[in-house]
Amino acid sequence: MLSSVIAGLMRLPEWGLSTPVLVDWVEQALDLGITSFDHADIYGGYSVEAAFGAALASAPGLRQRLQIVTKCGIKLVSPARPGHAIKSYDCSRAHLLASVDESLRALRTDHIDLLLLHRPDLLMNPDEVADTFSHLRACGKVLAFGVSNHRGDQVALLHRRFPLQAHQLEFSVLQAQALDDGSLVQCQDLGLQAMAWSPLAGGRLFSPYDAQARRVLPVLEGLGAQHGVSPATLAYAWLMRHPARPRPVTGSGRIAALREAVAAMGLPLSAEDWYRVWQASTGHEVP
Amino acid sequence: MLSSVIAGLMRLPEWGLSTPVLVDWVEQALDLGITSFDHADIYGGYSVEAAFGAALASAPGLRQRLQIVTKCGIKLVSPARPGHAIKSYDCSRAHLLASVDESLRALRTDHIDLLLLHRPDLLMNPDEVADTFSHLRACGKVLAFGVSNHRGDQVALLHRRFPLQAHQLEFSVLQAQALDDGSLVQCQDLGLQAMAWSPLAGGRLFSPYDAQARRVLPVLEGLGAQHGVSPATLAYAWLMRHPARPRPVTGSGRIAALREAVAAMGLPLSAEDWYRVWQASTGHEVP
Amino acid sequence: MLSSVIAGLMRLPEWGLSTPVLVDWVEQALDLGITSFDHADIYGGYSVEAAFGAALASAPGLRQRLQIVTKCGIKLVSPARPGHAIKSYDCSRAHLLASVDESLRALRTDHIDLLLLHRPDLLMNPDEVADTFSHLRACGKVLAFGVSNHRGDQVALLHRRFPLQAHQLEFSVLQAQALDDGSLVQCQDLGLQAMAWSPLAGGRLFSPYDAQARRVLPVLEGLGAQHGVSPATLAYAWLMRHPARPRPVTGSGRIAALREAVAAMGLPLSAEDWYRVWQASTGHEVP
Repeated sequence: MLSSVIAGLMRLPEWGLSTPVLVDWVEQALDLGITSFDHADIYGGYSVEAAFGAALASAPGLRQRLQIVTKCGIKLVSPARPGHAIKSYDCSRAHLLASVDESLRALRTDHIDLLLLHRPDLLMNPDEVADTFSHLRACGKVLAFGVSNHRGDQVALLHRRFPLQAHQLEFSVLQAQALDDGSLVQCQDLGLQAMAWSPLAGGRLFSPYDAQARRVLPVLEGLGAQHGVSPATLAYAWLMRHPARPRPVTGSGRIAALREAVAAMGLPLSAEDWYRVWQASTGHEVP
Repeated sequence: MLSSVIAGLMRLPEWGLSTPVLVDWVEQALDLGITSFDHADIYGGYSVEAAFGAALASAPGLRQRLQIVTKCGIKLVSPARPGHAIKSYDCSRAHLLASVDESLRALRTDHIDLLLLHRPDLLMNPDEVADTFSHLRACGKVLAFGVSNHRGDQVALLHRRFPLQAHQLEFSVLQAQALDDGSLVQCQDLGLQAMAWSPLAGGRLFSPYDAQARRVLPVLEGLGAQHGVSPATLAYAWLMRHPARPRPVTGSGRIAALREAVAAMGLPLSAEDWYRVWQASTGHEVP
Repeated sequence: MLSSVIAGLMRLPEWGLSTPVLVDWVEQALDLGITSFDHADIYGGYSVEAAFGAALASAPGLRQRLQIVTKCGIKLVSPARPGHAIKSYDCSRAHLLASVDESLRALRTDHIDLLLLHRPDLLMNPDEVADTFSHLRACGKVLAFGVSNHRGDQVALLHRRFPLQAHQLEFSVLQAQALDDGSLVQCQDLGLQAMAWSPLAGGRLFSPYDAQARRVLPVLEGLGAQHGVSPATLAYAWLMRHPARPRPVTGSGRIAALREAVAAMGLPLSAEDWYRVWQASTGHEVP
């Protein structure tokens, strides 16, 4: 359902694109095979979905050629939501239904392809969420459901009541806790589509002041040279090589950056080279 | 089966109540709707159950109006148990059967409503425990079973062999590890009745020398003022708001203190206010 | 299937035994009731299996009187494996099949009794492993399968696809993390045979410079004196007392050391004495 690389729109406001230029950007992404676009209601202070929706509205037929992922469940203090006094989480039925309706209106579409609970609401009633998801699916507003940034026990609690299809979590060669905490193993076990946010560690990979990056980047450069690709492409290939087949959610507005992610698809990284990168990341040999 | 607030008897020896006064105290608790009384064989150095039993024996009809929770499995070094050379745990069949018989004799009753394994015995044979529980239920000595202070994997090990009904764990606005370690999610998932000991963090909530308490107490006071209740009541309402519906086990002998717990029942704490307290507890916004 | 004590061959190269002397050593182990011998392809830099195989080949009938455990999945940098550029893990079908064939050839046998994945390969595809295990069992090359040093979620991931029979993990009175991390509980829960490597903590138990050993050893000596056995025997009895019934994998080439392990079988260590040792190990009473 999702493309192997997913374009993340979190930073759309920083890119300063007019609606026609955004349409063009989406078209270029589609040409690269990136058909999935990742949103959250809160991105840009509740503004990104509407900007994307304007692009969709101005380009007839565009909506059918792409999939929309969006998230809900975080309440941000924002002029756009004067009712929120503090930042908090909410996955009550009332909030989820209202949030989806807002997202559909902003995105100018009649359905969301994949809806994720953005953060684990400690007050989650899993039966209520399951019921709400069922309703949203039955009325065609949302096609599939998942979570983001949840602990394994929280995923399992909900999954046993409603079949989830995806877990979006932080995963990169510099931030690989998902390998240690069982998150990716759970994706394998339950058949959840893993999605990786911050696949380049938010740019830290290229920081000369980061000790871990200084270990990893030369290894990526060396392997990249062998394969004729950039170190960023190698970083994408490394994460996509995991058997949970994580799909990176890019963060950049540059088409060249998307191209670097797409170039990782099918790049034949050997298991040994995967461990070579992993060893540079942890700073030591495997035990 | 249990009342929403449970009266804990751990500190009974400190209250200095004669048997008639204790009967009166129990009657007052019952008048408040508190019908469940929490014991352990070891409380008061193996003395509390007997003191409570004396009250029951002196007041015909009292036993039928309340539920007794007690615990077993800790062996304390005590003049009352000269056979114990060190503090250790024991949930062997022989110890559980002997412990229940001692508790029944001390409590002057023919049945325990809920029996909990007090601490996880690392030497637990789950089949032996399941077998022992079945026997205790079949002969009517114990109506229901649970655990206290067990890790999730230990709960699951036993629950798969014998259906547990409750998990008593530490939980309060100042000590909320149960939110992080999956314990409360497990209660939700398996349908275990959560019980919360130290619901006011052993009084630490009111310590002027505790940095966390100094953050939390003003928030509880503010919200309490809005609802017309004490900060202690708000602390109870906060923990009872969790979807596992934890039942606080009080520690005080003052009826006024029990009343503060009971006042939390049904107090309409909003999710946002729950997070407001949580933020004060952790010292930071949610991520 | 396995004997209660398992003779580990990891250090065979240090013992400096000729083939006839090794045959004699194996015979003495068998006389003690130790019928299981623990290997890994990598032991001795890929040399131990072949040395053991030479002993088996020189003593007709010996193979049928013992069980061979071996491990695979670690790729070591070694003159014996010039293709390995770095230390890494590999449980791909190709590597497992090749590794088993190498082990069979080196051991001069037609079957391995128990094959363990030595370390968790982060790139493990559990369906591929399950498929490979099924194939190896079907063609009679391996009779049973397990893992070593895996996290609980990794064990479960594989076990749900292929029934594992054993988990070999580090466990001793000085290194008892397996009591805390749920590993032994999982062995109980899934019915996996627990095997304990470094059962004497690699000799640290007898180090005068180790604070933990200085607490534990006197307790073992005291209890050992009561039972008429050495402190090492008591250390074995302590670990074998756990309800997962871990089977120690010895490390020594001295028959007297094997005898100390065997002497622990059936030694009636009371639960209280088990906790006495445990208290010395942790340095504090149980909570």
